[in-house]
Amino acid sequence: MSKKLTKREDDYSKWYNELVVKADLAENSSVRGCMVIKPYGYAIWEKMQSQLDKMFKETGHQNAYFPLFVPKSLFEAEEKNAEGFAKECAVVTHYRLKNDEKNPGKLIVDEKAKLEEELIVRPTSEAIIWNTYKNWIQSYRDLPILINQWANVVRWEMRTRLFLRTAEFLWQEGHTAHSTKQEAIEEAEQMNNIYAEFAQNFMGIPVIKGLKSESERFAGAEETYCIEALMQDGKALQAGTSHFLGQNFAKAFDVKFANKSGTLEHVWATSWGVSTRLIGALIMTHSDDNGLVLPPNLAPIQVVIIPIYRSDEQFELICSKVNPIIDKLKAKNISVLFDKRDTYKPGFKFNEHEIKGVPIRIAIGPNDLENSTLEIFRRDNMVKETISFDEVFDKIDFLLEDIQSNLFSKAKTFTENNTRIVNNYDEFKSILNNEGGFISAHWDGTKETEDKIKKETKATIRCIPLNTVKEYGKCIYSNKPSSQRVLFAKAY
Amino acid sequence: MSKKLTKREDDYSKWYNELVVKADLAENSSVRGCMVIKPYGYAIWEKMQSQLDKMFKETGHQNAYFPLFVPKSLFEAEEKNAEGFAKECAVVTHYRLKNDEKNPGKLIVDEKAKLEEELIVRPTSEAIIWNTYKNWIQSYRDLPILINQWANVVRWEMRTRLFLRTAEFLWQEGHTAHSTKQEAIEEAEQMNNIYAEFAQNFMGIPVIKGLKSESERFAGAEETYCIEALMQDGKALQAGTSHFLGQNFAKAFDVKFANKSGTLEHVWATSWGVSTRLIGALIMTHSDDNGLVLPPNLAPIQVVIIPIYRSDEQFELICSKVNPIIDKLKAKNISVLFDKRDTYKPGFKFNEHEIKGVPIRIAIGPNDLENSTLEIFRRDNMVKETISFDEVFDKIDFLLEDIQSNLFSKAKTFTENNTRIVNNYDEFKSILNNEGGFISAHWDGTKETEDKIKKETKATIRCIPLNTVKEYGKCIYSNKPSSQRVLFAKAY
Repeated sequence: MSKKLTKREDDYSKWYNELVVKADLAENSSVRGCMVIKPYGYAIWEKMQSQLDKMFKETGHQNAYFPLFVPKSLFEAEEKNAEGFAKECAVVTHYRLKNDEKNPGKLIVDEKAKLEEELIVRPTSEAIIWNTYKNWIQSYRDLPILINQWANVVRWEMRTRLFLRTAEFLWQEGHTAHSTKQEAIEEAEQMNNIYAEFAQNFMGIPVIKGLKSESERFAGAEETYCIEALMQDGKALQAGTSHFLGQNFAKAFDVKFANKSGTLEHVWATSWGVSTRLIGALIMTHSDDNGLVLPPNLAPIQVVIIPIYRSDEQFELICSKVNPIIDKLKAKNISVLFDKRDTYKPGFKFNEHEIKGVPIRIAIGPNDLENSTLEIFRRDNMVKETISFDEVFDKIDFLLEDIQSNLFSKAKTFTENNTRIVNNYDEFKSILNNEGGFISAHWDGTKETEDKIKKETKATIRCIPLNTVKEYGKCIYSNKPSSQRVLFAKAY
Repeated sequence: MSKKLTKREDDYSKWYNELVVKADLAENSSVRGCMVIKPYGYAIWEKMQSQLDKMFKETGHQNAYFPLFVPKSLFEAEEKNAEGFAKECAVVTHYRLKNDEKNPGKLIVDEKAKLEEELIVRPTSEAIIWNTYKNWIQSYRDLPILINQWANVVRWEMRTRLFLRTAEFLWQEGHTAHSTKQEAIEEAEQMNNIYAEFAQNFMGIPVIKGLKSESERFAGAEETYCIEALMQDGKALQAGTSHFLGQNFAKAFDVKFANKSGTLEHVWATSWGVSTRLIGALIMTHSDDNGLVLPPNLAPIQVVIIPIYRSDEQFELICSKVNPIIDKLKAKNISVLFDKRDTYKPGFKFNEHEIKGVPIRIAIGPNDLENSTLEIFRRDNMVKETISFDEVFDKIDFLLEDIQSNLFSKAKTFTENNTRIVNNYDEFKSILNNEGGFISAHWDGTKETEDKIKKETKATIRCIPLNTVKEYGKCIYSNKPSSQRVLFAKAY
């Protein structure tokens, strides 16, 4: 805790890695690429889950749970999806260990317990779910199916980073089934809008809503909607995706329904998900060289109160002042911690709660007792002031709202200032290497051009923004005609 | 839905299996032994989670998340634990699939992607967690650690049944670390008490609190506390366990702390868990030949309202009467469904909600409109009455409480009536084969006797009850002296 955090401008990546550990959010485990999400980090995830779950249920979705494993024969049924995930999946081949006769106390795989068919640890659940939906859907009366699942998934990533890219991660995956193409498209759009609303209003992360280009689409999707956010180092981060899957999975798993006139049709599908990766986005959007900065909506502790005293008597006096405040804050559903540990000094506590991003810190010492005052500190802009006891509730109400909106505006301004309109490839490359950020440029719509730009610059098309005006122009790379600007960036 | 449910007295096991599917709670998946928990079943699990989570947090526990996989070398570190789970665990050996060149479109395991060390899909997380705690604990100031995890686990059971025994199941597992033996024992006892309180007050399931005999203990525990419930067929079901793990895991993973005087000591541990198996207990405790019966606390839908009408005009009139009721119930946090589907007839709906165990059903038709009445039906005792509109809120409040307490008393009476004091082995065998239930009998305390009774009768010691008076007597099997009666039963 005591060692200083690396500064962002010195090494952004190192700053991030250190911060995750120092703020007690997560750490690497002894399983390659898998993380341990520590209580403080998990408490943030719980707040995110609770809000998202509410939003999903308000739009008619229900939760369910499907198996962790996917039999290989189901996994390979939708070819594009299988191809997309085959290279990075954990495979269960045996169901028993036995004693190693050569090494007492050690275990080895029991070769007699080899599975007839290998099981894939789900990297995503379309296959197992559509194989299940097949039995649930006979007629139009069984549709729509609007289901979400909170689950762990495994993708055997070679280069992992806490929250941003881990072999196992936690997420939610929605899987819906519809009788018409139009309804499925509307569902995919609705969920992308919900993700955007959640990111912006709840996490304070400004996002751009858009469509993925064909090569960035989810394996097996007809269209991928996404929200893209810009991190402080000028790299983009895909914060959520929602897929219109067409009839691809319905065809792969032979899922048909009888419409009102009795004719059999293939079902239309969507899937959509956000993951613990969002915690990485949260960290990189708001935090600073002093540590984590949390928007009040997501802070496990919104207010910390630190007593400063030299005698037991002073401590008792502070308690008698502070306890009624705590009761009233709790009654208002404000989460408050009275940090009265006597094993740590106030300076240590100040530092700890600063690095952990507690939005509001209150300190109260002997002088405050005499003057009926307290010191209140807001983590977002590090401003400290002394106020009277009477003002404390109004002040806290104000700060909780103000910090939340301030963090969003700050990030929004940053994103806007770092979104640049570019009209030629040299400028494109120069901005990409110097400033970074989103680059709005014309593209001819071909995979070939996209691949070349990616190969030459490492920039990818983050999205084709929705809600923008059509503007004709020429592709910065090929000079061929283009009908809309797209957003390029280097990305996480 | 239409086909009649098998009667309990005809075939209890078949009744259970049919009920789980007909009440839309869960179904078997295409992965051997793994279930799909359907939205209605999952909604019950969510209610259980929410209440348990609240009780855990109120007693100072925090949630966290640890990896799904356990490297084999960690898995085998605590020998008894490893031995207990080695024979039933899913093993990941590879991390990639590749195209099968002989079968286009098919995938095979890529032998080049073989893991250096196999990964076990967690059957329980003591090993991975204690290997993590090792780095979290240096001094007494780091203790206690009070952590819970909501997770999926896998145990490769050969004979599976929905909820009761599945290869993958959902559960919570608490893992705590303490500086003294006494504190760890108190924690294990506290959590067993919380489980008992939850089962009885929330699920309406009466339980007996007790200790497991040595041979029934969790692999790696010094003492296992448990709650045992009696199902309607006279078989017992272990509904939750809490383990005092002594210093076994601390020693296996070398976890020591410096006490206040600076001496290094091994840490003391507990772990405790309940799982989706509790849904099986819920079903088998309360349900009847007409289907599921749910205590109001756990019912995803507490009140269903079914309109009966012949014309659109009648339907409109019913809506105008019913909508204010719905608003008021929702404001009181009572979950209500107005089943206005026009694709199903009232009779179908009555039957569906009956088999799904909705505690209160309200029906309203043309006559009711004239008389300002409605028909209210309680699922627990199938009693129907006509009441005036004015009475509806009081009636619902009364019924929600009365159904909850009635279900518990009914089950409690059943358990009491089926707990028999027995003093000789012939009577023991006769009761076991005819009446079933709990049998309170003297046992000499040896594993040998326990094993013989189990082999001869299939009855096991469910627990050594806590809070009972010491009573000296003679073992029903060996005639050796015994200092306390224990509870025997055949069990799930």
